[in-house]
Amino acid sequence: MDMFLYLTPAFGAVALLFALNRARFVSRQDAGTERMVEIAAAIREGAMAFLRREYSVLAVFAVVVAVLLYVANLGGGTELVGLSFLIGALCSAVAGWFGMRVATAANVRTANAARTSIAPALRVAFAGGSVMGMSVVGLGILGLSGLFLFYTRVVFVESAEPLGQVLQVLAGFSLGASSIALFARVGGGIYTKSADVGADLVGKVEAGIPEDDPRNPAVIADNVGDNVGDVCGMGADLFESYVGAIIGGMVLGVAFAENLPGAEPLHYVMLPMVLAGFGIAASILGTFLVRTREGANPQTALNLGTLGAGVLMLAIAWPVIGMLTPEVQGALYGCLVTGLIVGAAIGLITEYYTSDARKPAQAVAQASNTGSATNIIAGLALGMRSTALPLLLIAAAITIGYELAGLYGIALAGLGMLATVGIQLAVDAYGPIADNAGGIAEMSELPAEVRQRTDKLDAVGNTTAAIGKGFAIGSAALAAMALMSAFQQQAGVGALGLSLGNPVILAGLLIGGMVPFLFSSIAMQAVGEAAFDMIKEVRRQFREIPGLLEGAPGAKADNARCVDIATAAALRRMVAPGLMAVLIPVVAGFIDKNFLAGLLAGALVSGVLLAIFMANAGGAWDNAKKYIEGGQHGGKGSEAHKAAVVGDTVGDPFKDTAGPAINILIKLMSVVALVIAPLIR
Amino acid sequence: MDMFLYLTPAFGAVALLFALNRARFVSRQDAGTERMVEIAAAIREGAMAFLRREYSVLAVFAVVVAVLLYVANLGGGTELVGLSFLIGALCSAVAGWFGMRVATAANVRTANAARTSIAPALRVAFAGGSVMGMSVVGLGILGLSGLFLFYTRVVFVESAEPLGQVLQVLAGFSLGASSIALFARVGGGIYTKSADVGADLVGKVEAGIPEDDPRNPAVIADNVGDNVGDVCGMGADLFESYVGAIIGGMVLGVAFAENLPGAEPLHYVMLPMVLAGFGIAASILGTFLVRTREGANPQTALNLGTLGAGVLMLAIAWPVIGMLTPEVQGALYGCLVTGLIVGAAIGLITEYYTSDARKPAQAVAQASNTGSATNIIAGLALGMRSTALPLLLIAAAITIGYELAGLYGIALAGLGMLATVGIQLAVDAYGPIADNAGGIAEMSELPAEVRQRTDKLDAVGNTTAAIGKGFAIGSAALAAMALMSAFQQQAGVGALGLSLGNPVILAGLLIGGMVPFLFSSIAMQAVGEAAFDMIKEVRRQFREIPGLLEGAPGAKADNARCVDIATAAALRRMVAPGLMAVLIPVVAGFIDKNFLAGLLAGALVSGVLLAIFMANAGGAWDNAKKYIEGGQHGGKGSEAHKAAVVGDTVGDPFKDTAGPAINILIKLMSVVALVIAPLIR
Repeated sequence: MDMFLYLTPAFGAVALLFALNRARFVSRQDAGTERMVEIAAAIREGAMAFLRREYSVLAVFAVVVAVLLYVANLGGGTELVGLSFLIGALCSAVAGWFGMRVATAANVRTANAARTSIAPALRVAFAGGSVMGMSVVGLGILGLSGLFLFYTRVVFVESAEPLGQVLQVLAGFSLGASSIALFARVGGGIYTKSADVGADLVGKVEAGIPEDDPRNPAVIADNVGDNVGDVCGMGADLFESYVGAIIGGMVLGVAFAENLPGAEPLHYVMLPMVLAGFGIAASILGTFLVRTREGANPQTALNLGTLGAGVLMLAIAWPVIGMLTPEVQGALYGCLVTGLIVGAAIGLITEYYTSDARKPAQAVAQASNTGSATNIIAGLALGMRSTALPLLLIAAAITIGYELAGLYGIALAGLGMLATVGIQLAVDAYGPIADNAGGIAEMSELPAEVRQRTDKLDAVGNTTAAIGKGFAIGSAALAAMALMSAFQQQAGVGALGLSLGNPVILAGLLIGGMVPFLFSSIAMQAVGEAAFDMIKEVRRQFREIPGLLEGAPGAKADNARCVDIATAAALRRMVAPGLMAVLIPVVAGFIDKNFLAGLLAGALVSGVLLAIFMANAGGAWDNAKKYIEGGQHGGKGSEAHKAAVVGDTVGDPFKDTAGPAINILIKLMSVVALVIAPLIR
Repeated sequence: MDMFLYLTPAFGAVALLFALNRARFVSRQDAGTERMVEIAAAIREGAMAFLRREYSVLAVFAVVVAVLLYVANLGGGTELVGLSFLIGALCSAVAGWFGMRVATAANVRTANAARTSIAPALRVAFAGGSVMGMSVVGLGILGLSGLFLFYTRVVFVESAEPLGQVLQVLAGFSLGASSIALFARVGGGIYTKSADVGADLVGKVEAGIPEDDPRNPAVIADNVGDNVGDVCGMGADLFESYVGAIIGGMVLGVAFAENLPGAEPLHYVMLPMVLAGFGIAASILGTFLVRTREGANPQTALNLGTLGAGVLMLAIAWPVIGMLTPEVQGALYGCLVTGLIVGAAIGLITEYYTSDARKPAQAVAQASNTGSATNIIAGLALGMRSTALPLLLIAAAITIGYELAGLYGIALAGLGMLATVGIQLAVDAYGPIADNAGGIAEMSELPAEVRQRTDKLDAVGNTTAAIGKGFAIGSAALAAMALMSAFQQQAGVGALGLSLGNPVILAGLLIGGMVPFLFSSIAMQAVGEAAFDMIKEVRRQFREIPGLLEGAPGAKADNARCVDIATAAALRRMVAPGLMAVLIPVVAGFIDKNFLAGLLAGALVSGVLLAIFMANAGGAWDNAKKYIEGGQHGGKGSEAHKAAVVGDTVGDPFKDTAGPAINILIKLMSVVALVIAPLIR
């Protein structure tokens, strides 16, 4: 079965080549008028400048942590954890950098293609999104399987019990990915929302000028934000989900195979990685299904692509599992299928609660008639209620996965949700590209039908992205559980110590449960403060630059200043929540390993709940506003609309900053625990 | 030590006699002008009518549950659980009925006394509150210790292992108290907030008439709501906290004494009850310290009373513990002190986060300058952040309590927070009486200084009540933990089954964590819908009754109609959340007892977090509004004030409906589990 060991990095390489090919396709397209090129350059410049500054901060963090990991010397021969960590961080950073570079080239080219018609615009935008998707899975698998090969074939060849040690060292890769992801998500989330809120509140509400109007100095920053938040932040997010789910499964594979007569442990360890590799192939093939003819609904194309990749994955997985782990082929396949079904079901529930075509979000719109207070109450109640079914489904996946194949089964169910993340992320990243294209069309004063086309593309992406969110939340819960269980095994926490009858566990549960609340509070407050800085600057420019608001020919908004403010605010404010996530498990672990185990479980429970609550409340507020803007309850400018705008603004930090970052938080905390496990054993 | 066994019910009887004495004092006061008497009669009539209808619904529920408990026959000879349940429900109902009857007599007499000066008004209002406080502790202790005597001395005299069985049967009392409390809290909360929101939104915001203006048809309902929600609902709430904390401790006392050489189990079982009895004595003595001279700050009087009772309690507890349980006198005393300190600290933290004299609520007021959205974000972030320290303190209390005296120690720490609940509740109930007095003064068009005096009394009560909330939250967490542990013991759930490594436990944690979210959502939605009905009715009356808004002499608002609407809405909508709390643990228990154990822990963790989050966010929004009304950021009528009103309205169902009900929810779920433990053993 060594074939698989070499095949897996090959899949990673193929993904990267495919990404390069798509990038070249994008760059070959025409970027349009001079004005379009100029605006796109400003967005790209702002985005890349943010990334450069963010990465300089993160580089310092990464080197410090790597040195600490080396010095800590986590068990015999495991000083290589630091190396894994650095490579993990590097792979995540490169994937984000490359994906965003291409996304900021694809946006203007999508706008230009939309001047002709919708089909070529879809092609360009989706090609741009594919680069992000394939970079993430390609670098994830290549880095992981490359390191695994290196450690098993070069470093630990002569060691007595190589597998456990290799995996302990490999966990550093996941730590690197997760810590970069948390900073990128929080930093990007603060950036995009401060710019968005600033642009909207002063431009749209106070000055009454349309969205994406070039007179608004925060508009470029807003578009930069879409890239650093929704493209780069989400890429780093899914990179860490992907890597975490795979590594969690690999670690749990050892113990599972040991209790299975006749099973070869190496195969069980390899399986998650190998399945992810074949998932790449399925994703690439899926992208070829995404094409549309003029007049057809682009939704169909995206659905066909993701669904096709899923079906393909299920078809490939059966023989692969049969070859590698024939002892429990049916059971493991069952886990994978369970994960896929549960992920899709959570996605559909997410869609049900947030879509403006469904009753829940429409009820929030209805509640806007009696003012912002009832709109807010309705949205909060909706978000809380919407946790019920997903939690039941996640609990079902845990129970079924465990019944079929123990803790290993839970990890595989989580992996099932993420196997085709290559194409899922392509769709996710396609959305902000289409959104950006619309902004560029507006700012370059292209004809109205161009904006209509890009809006249509954007709307389609939103629905598919909602389903993707279901996978992200479900897989985060299962991956965190797998990592937490892996920690319990590696730290040697006994069942007795883990008992709910043990008050140390209960103290851990309570304090752990509090961490996501504290984290969300810090993230939301950061958005509020950063937005406040932005509001002041936009107001100042409208006041001090003569003729700007009136659109006088010589008056130009100082976009760069707003970009600077958002950048500085995001970088300064991402540090505290990021460090908190890393340090809390370390401190807890040195107090008591049982306490840490309880803390992780508490954070998992309240984290999953808060993440779903915030994502769905935010999504529903957003779509309730859009529903009203579509002409219901008096349409744009009505009292109901004003109330709905308040809800949407509250929802912004919910759904785009705090909510998604919690998904990373709970995994990062578990990975930190897993990495330091040998120290507190 | 039999002396103590008979002394305890005697304390209960004394409390009731004292309550009667205070009630007579109140009724002897003059009720004022004809107009005042008329208005007070309307409020009292509405409140008592609501209570009658609520109790008719609950009577059906209680009889059905009692029959089910009898039929289920929970273990040998324990068909008496149903009897305990009925008596518990009855005691809770009677305490609520009596307390509210006197409160609705005290409000108008307080208003009348305030026509002279502040000192007599404080005396009347506090006497009214004392009736509620003493009824609750009196009936709680009398019922509990009476039943205990009856079971140990009459029913189970010849049984082999009487104590465990007696306590299993006695747990029914707690079940009765908790289920009545949940319905009363939710029903009262829906009532008061629908009336409040309806009166404010249409009267104050739309029509621009002052608060408590007699032209507003929802104003009587609003004042009725203060009684059924804040007096009766809170009384039932603290009745169940009190009873739950005592019974949890009694059950855990058996196992604790068994592992202690030379210890007499009966004494350890009695101790929580006996300490509560002496707490009554301390509370009564404390009430005598509540007197103020003209010109002095009434705050000092209330502080002196509660503090004095606390100190007295600490002084009595030492010898009592020494006589009953000399083996571990120091350790048990330490638990009591820990509970008191932690409760007071949580109270001070609550006060810090919500007071308008402190930075956090002032920052929410500041955020109102940029609109409702930033006000809401700031309030939500504040609420989330404010969970951090209380959770650390609760975890500390758990750890210290356990170190000192195992699970029994945790229960005693919880009891420490509630020992002087008699006077705490007197202060809590005094607030709404003063508030009501202000409303009556306004509606009867008494001179402005009367309203100023009652406002001063009300404000003082609010601060002391904030501290009381700290005790309520802290004790709820510890009492729920004690009841949960008691369930684990009685159901024979082993440490292995309870392990976090057991996925059934994790599934339980996740689903249990979701329950408070779902529950809050239902409660908040109920308020929203009920308020909507009220808004429509008030608008209709303003529209259809000629001359009402203008204050024409013949035009009279149809108050009764609004009272009816609030009553019907509250009764209809309290059923679903109430039944949910009772049924979920039963269903979970019959699926798997480990699953139920996990579910209880999950509900505890997320319930405590949500309860603190909601209470403090709501409190801060309320006080941010008051801070602005005090003249900051433009004062009343400014844009900032409008934004703050939105936050306050969102906060209403947070802090007065969903938040406090969650405290009951987590205990009720644990009590249900404890009662059905023999069935799923």
